[in-house]
Amino acid sequence: MPEVKYTLVLIRHGESDWNRQNRFTGWHDVPLSETGELEAAEAGKTLAKEGLQFDAVYTSVLRRAIKTAWHCMEQTNQMWLPVTRAWQLNERHYGGLTGLNKAETVAKVGEAQVLIWRRSYDIPPPEVETTSEYYPGNDRRYKALTPEQLPKTESLKLTLERVLPYWESDIKPAMQSGKRLLIAAHGNSLRALVKHLDGIPDDVIPGLNIPTGIPLVYELDEDFKPIPSADAIAPLNGRYLGDREMVEARIAGATSTGHK
Amino acid sequence: MPEVKYTLVLIRHGESDWNRQNRFTGWHDVPLSETGELEAAEAGKTLAKEGLQFDAVYTSVLRRAIKTAWHCMEQTNQMWLPVTRAWQLNERHYGGLTGLNKAETVAKVGEAQVLIWRRSYDIPPPEVETTSEYYPGNDRRYKALTPEQLPKTESLKLTLERVLPYWESDIKPAMQSGKRLLIAAHGNSLRALVKHLDGIPDDVIPGLNIPTGIPLVYELDEDFKPIPSADAIAPLNGRYLGDREMVEARIAGATSTGHK
Repeated sequence: MPEVKYTLVLIRHGESDWNRQNRFTGWHDVPLSETGELEAAEAGKTLAKEGLQFDAVYTSVLRRAIKTAWHCMEQTNQMWLPVTRAWQLNERHYGGLTGLNKAETVAKVGEAQVLIWRRSYDIPPPEVETTSEYYPGNDRRYKALTPEQLPKTESLKLTLERVLPYWESDIKPAMQSGKRLLIAAHGNSLRALVKHLDGIPDDVIPGLNIPTGIPLVYELDEDFKPIPSADAIAPLNGRYLGDREMVEARIAGATSTGHK
Repeated sequence: MPEVKYTLVLIRHGESDWNRQNRFTGWHDVPLSETGELEAAEAGKTLAKEGLQFDAVYTSVLRRAIKTAWHCMEQTNQMWLPVTRAWQLNERHYGGLTGLNKAETVAKVGEAQVLIWRRSYDIPPPEVETTSEYYPGNDRRYKALTPEQLPKTESLKLTLERVLPYWESDIKPAMQSGKRLLIAAHGNSLRALVKHLDGIPDDVIPGLNIPTGIPLVYELDEDFKPIPSADAIAPLNGRYLGDREMVEARIAGATSTGHK
């Protein structure tokens, strides 16, 4: 058994207002729903019960992930931890679909097309107009980004292509310096991370559901290779905290309610 | 009239659990009381109403200031702002008094002695034992500090002597790089800042009450000299946001309830 060198905890934000309304969200900055706030607080309590200590926290620049991190920090009495916000951890940008209701989009362009956009690895939705409020170039939080860095749309593959360089440039070095990290992010930015960590194939990763608000603990060896947990649920090698039956139901439930 | 080069907003955290219990708090990490949470949310709404935008947030490493910042960020929809936590912005360390009830301390050592500790500029309370839970050397959040940096007690003067170097080394350069800052901190670390900004004499500053949860806006010229606001309340040149009568009552109230 290889030695545990690093531990890393990932958490997907709780339900947001637009999850509830079944709208494509992406980079749009919607708050957690009431349910989402409760999920996040519950996740924090679970982390506290496990006695998990961190040295730093990473989040996207979207409030649903930030608020989820805040709940985890508050419940574990670690509000003092340094937090790094990184646009690279944002949700996949849904391009021209942002703001649209998913059912309405199905009615308009057909279910097959919507499934391609949602479930293919490398086919991005149509681009957002640069005049749209949903174009990140119109949001001051992204003013330091170059035009090339500002997405007009993203496939899961394009999402990986900005998450993984950040993993290499910032997250890995922080862990190598001895920091135990909590990363609060999104369905697709976390898919990008676990695809890389667990070596999940391109055709499997779009179907992987990471449930909201359930901490996912990885133990990694010195090469950042996951050490399979006895409680792992394939294809992941990390373990979700909490009752296994609940976790499995939540993974299945994420499919049917469209919280992807 | 000199030109406004920088704006800076200071906010003292809302009421904490130990303010309520009338205990010396200092570096002990107590949460906001329910009243304190409401105060902080109210402060955030006031900032939102004024339309104040920031580029970065600074807080101490104490949860009552951090939570106050969180409320301000959430109410103004600026949760994405980068936050820097700095122990240098912590409350004055109350040394061996930490945790003691103020009335009991008066009964034990006399009111005159307690007033000296609380109201003198340069007389620190007795030191805390290094075996005490209240000694910062026993708290992992301060593990990067040198023994010389870890206070065993602090007068207001000693508090200034770690706040002002941080102002020079970190806060001023951030402002010079064009960032509009919100600083959420404590009665005495904010006294240190305004003493420096407004040139308040040593014998006046210990009696200055900065009310909890009321944003204090400074406009500074290119030399970081405050441009006196028409709404300033002496000896400060900045302006408190909110109804003047309420603010004046809160300044007076802070004296009688011991929220210092």
